[in-house]
Amino acid sequence: MQSVIHVDLGERSYDIEIAPDAIDQLGERMRSLDLGKKVLLVSNPVVFRHYGDRAMASLRDRGFEVAHCIIMAGEQYKTLNSIQKIYGQALENQLERSSTMVALGGGVIGDMTGFAAATWLRGMNFIQVPTTLLAMVDASIGGKTGVNHPKGKNLIGAFYQPRLVLIDPKVLKTLPAREFRAGMAEVIKYGVIWDEALFEKMERCDRLDQLRFLPEELLHDILVRSCQSKVDVVVQDEREAGLRAILNYGHTIGHAVESLTRYKVTNHGEAVAIGMVAASRCAVQLKCWDEACDARQFELIEKTGLPTKLPSNLDIEKILETLKTDKKVKDGKVRFILPKRIGEATISDRVTSDLLREILPTLQ
Amino acid sequence: MQSVIHVDLGERSYDIEIAPDAIDQLGERMRSLDLGKKVLLVSNPVVFRHYGDRAMASLRDRGFEVAHCIIMAGEQYKTLNSIQKIYGQALENQLERSSTMVALGGGVIGDMTGFAAATWLRGMNFIQVPTTLLAMVDASIGGKTGVNHPKGKNLIGAFYQPRLVLIDPKVLKTLPAREFRAGMAEVIKYGVIWDEALFEKMERCDRLDQLRFLPEELLHDILVRSCQSKVDVVVQDEREAGLRAILNYGHTIGHAVESLTRYKVTNHGEAVAIGMVAASRCAVQLKCWDEACDARQFELIEKTGLPTKLPSNLDIEKILETLKTDKKVKDGKVRFILPKRIGEATISDRVTSDLLREILPTLQ
Ligand SMILES: NC(=O)c1ccc[n+]([C@@H]2O[C@H](COP(=O)([O-])OP(=O)(O)OC[C@H]3O[C@@H](n4cnc5c(N)ncnc54)[C@H](O)[C@@H]3O)[C@@H](O)[C@H]2O)c1
Ligand SMILES: NC(=O)c1ccc[n+]([C@@H]2O[C@H](COP(=O)([O-])OP(=O)(O)OC[C@H]3O[C@@H](n4cnc5c(N)ncnc54)[C@H](O)[C@@H]3O)[C@@H](O)[C@H]2O)c1
Ligand SMILES: [Zn+2]
Ligand SMILES: [Zn+2]
Repeated sequence: MQSVIHVDLGERSYDIEIAPDAIDQLGERMRSLDLGKKVLLVSNPVVFRHYGDRAMASLRDRGFEVAHCIIMAGEQYKTLNSIQKIYGQALENQLERSSTMVALGGGVIGDMTGFAAATWLRGMNFIQVPTTLLAMVDASIGGKTGVNHPKGKNLIGAFYQPRLVLIDPKVLKTLPAREFRAGMAEVIKYGVIWDEALFEKMERCDRLDQLRFLPEELLHDILVRSCQSKVDVVVQDEREAGLRAILNYGHTIGHAVESLTRYKVTNHGEAVAIGMVAASRCAVQLKCWDEACDARQFELIEKTGLPTKLPSNLDIEKILETLKTDKKVKDGKVRFILPKRIGEATISDRVTSDLLREILPTLQ
Repeated sequence: MQSVIHVDLGERSYDIEIAPDAIDQLGERMRSLDLGKKVLLVSNPVVFRHYGDRAMASLRDRGFEVAHCIIMAGEQYKTLNSIQKIYGQALENQLERSSTMVALGGGVIGDMTGFAAATWLRGMNFIQVPTTLLAMVDASIGGKTGVNHPKGKNLIGAFYQPRLVLIDPKVLKTLPAREFRAGMAEVIKYGVIWDEALFEKMERCDRLDQLRFLPEELLHDILVRSCQSKVDVVVQDEREAGLRAILNYGHTIGHAVESLTRYKVTNHGEAVAIGMVAASRCAVQLKCWDEACDARQFELIEKTGLPTKLPSNLDIEKILETLKTDKKVKDGKVRFILPKRIGEATISDRVTSDLLREILPTLQ
């Protein structure tokens, strides 16, 4: 099983390659691009311990000079401080414009490495080797890179495309189950907003809460269809002017929940799952989609072992307040993504604070 | 006298407008673009004292909500720290993606504001109102933005295009003469590498060392022809793959001189003037261009009151060493820009350390 998805963005085009043991092909795949010989591999301690040697060996075998930079694991290290650590390594190893930064890790490492690559020497080559499900199907695609500001997530960043995304499904074996489920939240999202077939394939599987319950083929399908969904949307709207907003399905409430619980109670995917439940109920209320669809989505989320209720002690008025500082606000209006049918979503400004005051208590 | 230069970069196209008192037109000109109503004006204390009120009034008259952020003047403040100060103001004033950052100042303010605009919320609108000659003819055009790293100039940055560049030649009246001459170094550069007519116009003026010796028309011509030169080059090579390198004429040695004297002895333009003298002599030696041209360039530089000799006590071996860490190095080779005739330059790798050991002492 091997699939290649071509991302057509003119001179910024690149491929997403999905294949078991792809990690050992990193050097070879990079050889086929026109890159300088210096490489800085950025990773975190856990991922580097599992896969660092294989990635570095593959690069060295193909003649690359590889240095590495290890950033502590965790969202709290996704800061300008860590970026400066990467800059320091880039300087020490005398990276040039033609050199490459490789992100080996989850979305945290991918976002930071991408931002460092976008801003060191005003842009160098960048390659993603995502190792979490979330990073594979979401974070590594679309060119969003960045870090957090002490006062808000992802406030600092740049749009910057990788030269290659290399996905090795086998690395998911070491991923903690909770992280796996977090990635599944985004997969469910693609099913709801874009790919009905993907949604149905997942419905046909008995359990989705742990990797081991998924047949290898289903996993491959999930990766390919999810990446393709995101690519479809991103290619039509690279700089987030319109359509791309639908990828924020479940994220408006999700972000508020994450931020109010200081990223300690739910992880991103769990918050998105809660957000999808909320958005779906709003959509039912607004007669935008029907209760049967709402029920099917709910069941899929439950079967994946994701939460469907707000964390306890969360003040609903605080959620409403948080939405106001959300960057999806345009001239003061909150834009919500609502599902229309399985496989299609729309942007709406009909979700008022009053509607949310009615819906959110049903998630408590 | 009013000129508009259109910069054609597809969806990133924008205009450079040159007109006396343009600063009072800022609000009106911005109205014609599709921008949100929030504006953050970034400036430094000197420039803001001279022109801040007029710029802010013009914006408010046209219905913009304007906040401002003042950064201390000087290259030593062109740091990630200052960027974080701008981020702080952006946050405090709740800027949105559709909001605009306006740079009112020289290249330092322009580079920083551009980088902040490029990286806050992954990119917001950005407008340049350059107030030094150097910023008007060089820094504000071409989309290079960024800050310094403790270990090197402009190592951190992004390519990011403004939505508009608004040039008011009258603000140059308050610019210190030394800063004016620094800008003139870049103007002479355009004459040598790109625009023979510009070079000849300057030759026909008796003194170029102070603004007041320049007829108003010559100043306008200088601004228009310099901007057009840079635009011509940049449009053909937005991301600095090839041609754009000729803009670095005089800059290879120039940067080394600046960095070795810790940016305290020469300013950028003075260093570039020295660099042009050095490059020109190398070109003569390599029979790339003739002595008559070398003499004409030398005379123009002298007439502008710019230095033609290296600062005293500068070790030539240190210069050679510094060239090695210059980011214009590709796989270890220094690329030099050499003039061919007045109005044309070329990229060459024929400038060896030995040649420089021969030429540089003639500048001591
Ligand atoms: N750029 C985008 O478009 C985009 C999209 C979605 C999310 N994001 C960002 O991605 C981040 C979240 O990414 P994430 O969920 O991958 O989290 P993460 O990068 O923090 O990884 C989660 C955890 O899994 C561990 N890990 C990763 N791969 C492993 C493996 N193969 N085996 C064992 N352990 C492994 C990591 O050490 C980490 O502790 C957030 O910062 C979010 O803002 C970005
Ligand atoms: N982005 C690019 O393509 C590019 C190109 C060239 C240079 N640069 C950058 O530009 C910077 C240099 O720019 P600069 O030469 O404009 O220096 P600057 O911005 O430091 O300004 C020079 C001085 O002039 C003062 N000043 C500015 N306008 C004035 C006015 N109208 N009246 C009175 N005083 C005024 C400022 O307060 C400052 O002290 C460097 O950091 C350099 O790296 C960038
Ligand atoms: Zn997400
Ligand atoms: Zn310059």
